[in-house]
Amino acid sequence: MNKIEHIGIAVKDIEQSNKVFEALFGTAPYKQEMVESEKVLTSFFKTGPNKIELLQATDDDSPIAKFIEKKGEGIHHIAFEVDNIVEALERLSNEGFELIHKTPKKGADNKLIAFLHPKSTNGVLIELCQDIKG
Amino acid sequence: MNKIEHIGIAVKDIEQSNKVFEALFGTAPYKQEMVESEKVLTSFFKTGPNKIELLQATDDDSPIAKFIEKKGEGIHHIAFEVDNIVEALERLSNEGFELIHKTPKKGADNKLIAFLHPKSTNGVLIELCQDIKG
Repeated sequence: MNKIEHIGIAVKDIEQSNKVFEALFGTAPYKQEMVESEKVLTSFFKTGPNKIELLQATDDDSPIAKFIEKKGEGIHHIAFEVDNIVEALERLSNEGFELIHKTPKKGADNKLIAFLHPKSTNGVLIELCQDIKG
Repeated sequence: MNKIEHIGIAVKDIEQSNKVFEALFGTAPYKQEMVESEKVLTSFFKTGPNKIELLQATDDDSPIAKFIEKKGEGIHHIAFEVDNIVEALERLSNEGFELIHKTPKKGADNKLIAFLHPKSTNGVLIELCQDIKG
């Protein structure tokens, strides 16, 4: 794992939260992106080598809507950057971690992503991500 | 804010969790530290420029014990590195953020720290931290 690529934060109203995090960091989000497959609207802030990703559900059956219903707004996941996501998933599966995605899928921000199940990581939802080159 | 300095994760049994995160990162924690003022035992993992801090309560009235009782194990806070924590707290107070600590205090890992109240940051508990020089 090279670094924390980003932290995902579940919010109810991304426009309101953009203002909060803009005041926190002193800079505006550098992009906003719809991820149809996850039914979320995202916005991204840079903080040095890391990013903060705000996530607002666009549908009641979005994973983010379900998360907020259960736990309220707050930190949803940590994403770690890896060089080779296929190798990383194989290594972690062999270590006994439960994978939500056995093979990577296309995520926001031009990345291949996969999640580990929080029950094998002390309640922490962990994403692995690898930049798509080219 | 220069970077995510660390993410704090509340765990019930730090020895068990050290094994989980050692398997995840492929490296052992680089240090373990008792923070008497917070009634927590901590261990630290490096992941590139960032750290993961595991937190186990050493007493039933530790903030970590209360967090786990309410929400279960999982991500407890995000800590951002700042150059000047006094100036950062003043700026954020002026922006309308509610401060848990109006002046910094000594935290783990040789740092001055202060927390913002999660009710002004979409449910996210945010720590600011500055290295103590010398």
